[in-house]
Amino acid sequence: MTKAVVLLSGGMDSTTLLHDVIRRRGAREVCALSFFYGQKHRRELEAARWQARAAGVREHLVVDLSFFGELVRGKSALTDPALDILPLADLPVSDRNQPPTYVPNRNMILLSLAAAFAESRGIRDVFYGAQTQDRYGYWDCTAGFLERINAALALNRKGAVTIHAPFIGMRKAEELKLGFELGVDYAHTWTCYRGGEAPCGVCPACEERAGAFREVGLRDPLG
Amino acid sequence: MTKAVVLLSGGMDSTTLLHDVIRRRGAREVCALSFFYGQKHRRELEAARWQARAAGVREHLVVDLSFFGELVRGKSALTDPALDILPLADLPVSDRNQPPTYVPNRNMILLSLAAAFAESRGIRDVFYGAQTQDRYGYWDCTAGFLERINAALALNRKGAVTIHAPFIGMRKAEELKLGFELGVDYAHTWTCYRGGEAPCGVCPACEERAGAFREVGLRDPLG
Repeated sequence: MTKAVVLLSGGMDSTTLLHDVIRRRGAREVCALSFFYGQKHRRELEAARWQARAAGVREHLVVDLSFFGELVRGKSALTDPALDILPLADLPVSDRNQPPTYVPNRNMILLSLAAAFAESRGIRDVFYGAQTQDRYGYWDCTAGFLERINAALALNRKGAVTIHAPFIGMRKAEELKLGFELGVDYAHTWTCYRGGEAPCGVCPACEERAGAFREVGLRDPLG
Repeated sequence: MTKAVVLLSGGMDSTTLLHDVIRRRGAREVCALSFFYGQKHRRELEAARWQARAAGVREHLVVDLSFFGELVRGKSALTDPALDILPLADLPVSDRNQPPTYVPNRNMILLSLAAAFAESRGIRDVFYGAQTQDRYGYWDCTAGFLERINAALALNRKGAVTIHAPFIGMRKAEELKLGFELGVDYAHTWTCYRGGEAPCGVCPACEERAGAFREVGLRDPLG
């Protein structure tokens, strides 16, 4: 594999993956793709821009999906100003399986856009940082979901694009260990669902990040 | 089925489908979804707006995907000003299987957005007007493609959305006959790939439309 597209949110998973694809998997021509889908903040995107520059990608395209808030109106705490992002422990038990931070069908949308981008740039391999181990249990972050998307893409007669999620069976802490070996600078990543000056420390994403750093015995440069 | 989302481009297929879903399939609450994805003209969208009003849909959302031209840069005659839309007979034989009017992975993108829209409105059924009989042979207009997309959507644990393409086995002329029975006003549809004052009459889409009207022995109100 010499060319690849990497979906780059600017979080820990996709940032680690970007550096992994270049330094360990030897891709020589990498295009990164990021999305603004109406999140409450742009901290992740700033991190994505920094990492894309640091990794020396050939092209970094940020696609504006700000219509997303209207499309999925009232359905996601990530895009709806009226919905707060609660710590996992505060969620009703019924919501833990598909919490309010879930965005309806987001991953199919992002993966299909990434496949279009790859196809138009003559690239066959797309990498994204999904993990089945995510405690949120998003249905569209599973290996089975990915297989079905790839089955649909395989029908393209002009050269099918394949989506790879090499971290899908890994735990967050294992991924972090890999990232440190690769020299990833986690000071320039953003995980917190809220977009304050510093990470809030209590939302499900912060909690998970803190757990991973604790497990590998390293200090989070974001504190 | 009492609620449905219909993908409405403003062309013959989706317009016929919209009226079919309401008048023959008895959906009482219909939301229509249209896209501007950087086409060279907006004639189809004007037709979509007219038809949505005529059908009395509950909500008609037009999503702006104008980033599409950049995403698939140089790869589609539908979005790239530098690429002309040639009559089918003028295409190199190698292109007839996937002609220049093909937009990379467009249908997976549009269907995934439609599924997100449906899910957020509490609707389980999405209708779109694909026909396998299309002479263009787009890989992402086939029944097999649709099956694989539905297989992926079926994993959604909060209530899966299903995409239906009831015209997928029908010929354009059969569809047109059905539309006339339903009283569809084809003066307010747009088929031509170019966006002139009147349809060009020579692009593949015009050619196909004319063939269907000829076959059913009716006059096209667009001339």
